[in-house]
Amino acid sequence: MELLKQTLEAIKPADENAKRKAAERLDNLAKPIGALGVLEEIVIKMAGITGKPHNKIEKRNVVVMCGDNGVLTENLGKGATGISVLSKTANADITPVDIGVNAEIDSPKIINKKVMYGTRNMTKGPAMTREEAIKAIEVGIEIADKLYSEGYDILGTGEMGIGNTTTSAAVLSAFSGLSPETTCGKGAGLTDDKYKSKIDAVVKALEVNKPNKEDPLDVISKVGGLDMAGMCGVFLSAAKNRKPAVVDGFISSAAALCAVRFNPLVKDYLFPSHLSKEPGASYMMNEIGLKPIFNLEMRLGEGTGCPFTFHVIEAALYVMDNMATFAEATIDNNVLIDIR
Amino acid sequence: MELLKQTLEAIKPADENAKRKAAERLDNLAKPIGALGVLEEIVIKMAGITGKPHNKIEKRNVVVMCGDNGVLTENLGKGATGISVLSKTANADITPVDIGVNAEIDSPKIINKKVMYGTRNMTKGPAMTREEAIKAIEVGIEIADKLYSEGYDILGTGEMGIGNTTTSAAVLSAFSGLSPETTCGKGAGLTDDKYKSKIDAVVKALEVNKPNKEDPLDVISKVGGLDMAGMCGVFLSAAKNRKPAVVDGFISSAAALCAVRFNPLVKDYLFPSHLSKEPGASYMMNEIGLKPIFNLEMRLGEGTGCPFTFHVIEAALYVMDNMATFAEATIDNNVLIDIR
Repeated sequence: MELLKQTLEAIKPADENAKRKAAERLDNLAKPIGALGVLEEIVIKMAGITGKPHNKIEKRNVVVMCGDNGVLTENLGKGATGISVLSKTANADITPVDIGVNAEIDSPKIINKKVMYGTRNMTKGPAMTREEAIKAIEVGIEIADKLYSEGYDILGTGEMGIGNTTTSAAVLSAFSGLSPETTCGKGAGLTDDKYKSKIDAVVKALEVNKPNKEDPLDVISKVGGLDMAGMCGVFLSAAKNRKPAVVDGFISSAAALCAVRFNPLVKDYLFPSHLSKEPGASYMMNEIGLKPIFNLEMRLGEGTGCPFTFHVIEAALYVMDNMATFAEATIDNNVLIDIR
Repeated sequence: MELLKQTLEAIKPADENAKRKAAERLDNLAKPIGALGVLEEIVIKMAGITGKPHNKIEKRNVVVMCGDNGVLTENLGKGATGISVLSKTANADITPVDIGVNAEIDSPKIINKKVMYGTRNMTKGPAMTREEAIKAIEVGIEIADKLYSEGYDILGTGEMGIGNTTTSAAVLSAFSGLSPETTCGKGAGLTDDKYKSKIDAVVKALEVNKPNKEDPLDVISKVGGLDMAGMCGVFLSAAKNRKPAVVDGFISSAAALCAVRFNPLVKDYLFPSHLSKEPGASYMMNEIGLKPIFNLEMRLGEGTGCPFTFHVIEAALYVMDNMATFAEATIDNNVLIDIR
């Protein structure tokens, strides 16, 4: 509890002064005001995070929280999964963490931080005790604290877990009041029958546990998951360390929603990635107040959108540093606006 | 006319056999069927273009067609513009072409293919003669033919030009029948008055010229532009050479619409980039039948979305080549679908 408490207490607002300085420079670049759209928003947000108008990303890492599934997790160790391959396209490292796989994982590449062998059945009672949930959140904080201290400039988040679109839907319903019919999707190819049982499971879990939406720890422990709690910890660490983290996929965004409910300031440290094809994803992003920048219709999870997001963020920062200002380009601002 | 005619005659359909082979491999990768969404569509489309299930992109180029604006074009030569900077983030070269700047351009870095010193006033008569439009289209074909023959695997398209959101709106209205109020946007920061004159100009141009939507050459010559015609030529060349080209921004998509009206098969050789913030952009993409993969709210033009699109395409191709199949990963397909 100490680490979580300290982390929450250390979170401060974004640096408005640095944001203003970044915005001023952007307005002086040889282009119409605002013409680089989201790229400009990224540059300004990043300034608010680090407190510096100019920023660079030199080291990237995707933290993959694994729960409940031995087979997939061992493939992550082998470098055979989607995120293992995609991370190479953005020159990103990955950090697979066993936070609660329901099997012994025998791979030196996977960090053993097992809190428990999978969560309990949330349709019969809380998935975790408060203490277990705190421990899982603190695993995420610890991992991220360490990576940021090792010089990683940005962290992505991903997961591998059994039934974690169900826990994410439950968390979304708990916080938003949206019906399980709205928040549940067919996940990775469910049949109609299994889809119906998914909805039933969420309805039941909410009835049995009555999670208190004013208490994020109550929600995440009763109807959340270990992977989600771990990613929530990564987001809290990002805000504490004044470093950016990327929200990617449905489970990651459920974790971000929890983090933002712990402290709304956390939102200013998070970059959204793609919009998952999971039907509840857009409701989740609305609830957090983030707007995804891609629509790649992906639903693989694992943090597979992070490498694309890293690339866009880095390109935005590069433009900020390298595009000519009006003065340098000898273009008259009024001319430029007039001619297009 | 000979080059345009030969090019149109040489365009063949996408290779369905190669697409099928690519799709089969994708379905065997260690992930739920279709879970990589747009990345999978990209891989399949690329197979159809080249006729090979596996493809690599090693050389990229953004062709920037410049018309009507000396100041901006010379900055392109200096490497100071948005696309000059952004192209570096994707390791892409750029090819600036003076296809009709209304000034003498004195830069060895800009290819001189000037068809004329800007187009005529379309509110008083045709912007170009048919012959001038053909010449501009053939400039695009020639440039692209040369770049593909030099080993560029993909071409992006961009422009710098005066008033080219107006010509693009006129072309969209001419082909689709949408009203100029719908197709005109405020461009790069127009006042209400200037916005109204933009709409009036499109209304007038359509009244005066009565472009025949069944004849794309009639539309592009009467209410199009030199930059647009040049990019249209790039797209036709892509289809002829069985190579991909990227449609980026409002003017580029107007050019793509013209190309697709010359021959609907061209669509299968085009990758959409981001959705421009120009209000008519989504109508244009619908009319062509392409779905943008980014929403970066950019409206700078110049082909500035191309570097991002190159990155996504390359990542998709990399996944196709490097992700493990179920057999390699020793995962049972049914298990994978069940556990998520």
